[in-house]
Amino acid sequence: MAQREAVVDGVFVALADSTRRAVISRLGHGPATVGDLAHDFPMTLPSFMKHVRTLEATGLIRTTKSGRVRTCELDRARLAVVQSWLDEQRRVWEARTDRLEQYVTDSEEHP
Amino acid sequence: MAQREAVVDGVFVALADSTRRAVISRLGHGPATVGDLAHDFPMTLPSFMKHVRTLEATGLIRTTKSGRVRTCELDRARLAVVQSWLDEQRRVWEARTDRLEQYVTDSEEHP
Repeated sequence: MAQREAVVDGVFVALADSTRRAVISRLGHGPATVGDLAHDFPMTLPSFMKHVRTLEATGLIRTTKSGRVRTCELDRARLAVVQSWLDEQRRVWEARTDRLEQYVTDSEEHP
Repeated sequence: MAQREAVVDGVFVALADSTRRAVISRLGHGPATVGDLAHDFPMTLPSFMKHVRTLEATGLIRTTKSGRVRTCELDRARLAVVQSWLDEQRRVWEARTDRLEQYVTDSEEHP
């Protein structure tokens, strides 16, 4: 599998969980510590850390540790792979719609 | 979990596989039979059918059977849940950028 496909797989897997999507949304407001983030979710800290590590492994977030405090930050560039994929699909649909319209126009002009 | 979240989870899971994404891309060009689609992928028909069923279960594609031929068609409305989620994130980032700019402007005017 091409490396890009593996990256896209990973990003979609990471986003296929409501907790991880909520973390992404929260980090859209700005960086936050793992402690502050974990507070918003009804699960143990080890369970929450698994989600943080999944997000970090795919590159959707970056984390930095200062003393005992780990801070998470969103990497919007990684999320852009999802937008790129959607844009690719839209280009295909639009090209198809254009061809269908051309076909209808041609049929009307040369019935 | 809210029903909408479950739908979004399902769509992201369905898209977290390069074969299923390729099927979505192929169906963007127009409907196709399972037989024609399967021909493009190096796997057995039963394996390919699992991917078709996953896509159908999430509502990303619809299938209809006529005699022994099953035809697949893309449902673009379901794919729109991914775009909606991305748009939500972008609104959060833009609101944050606006607030940061306002803060810088205020600081410059009232240092």
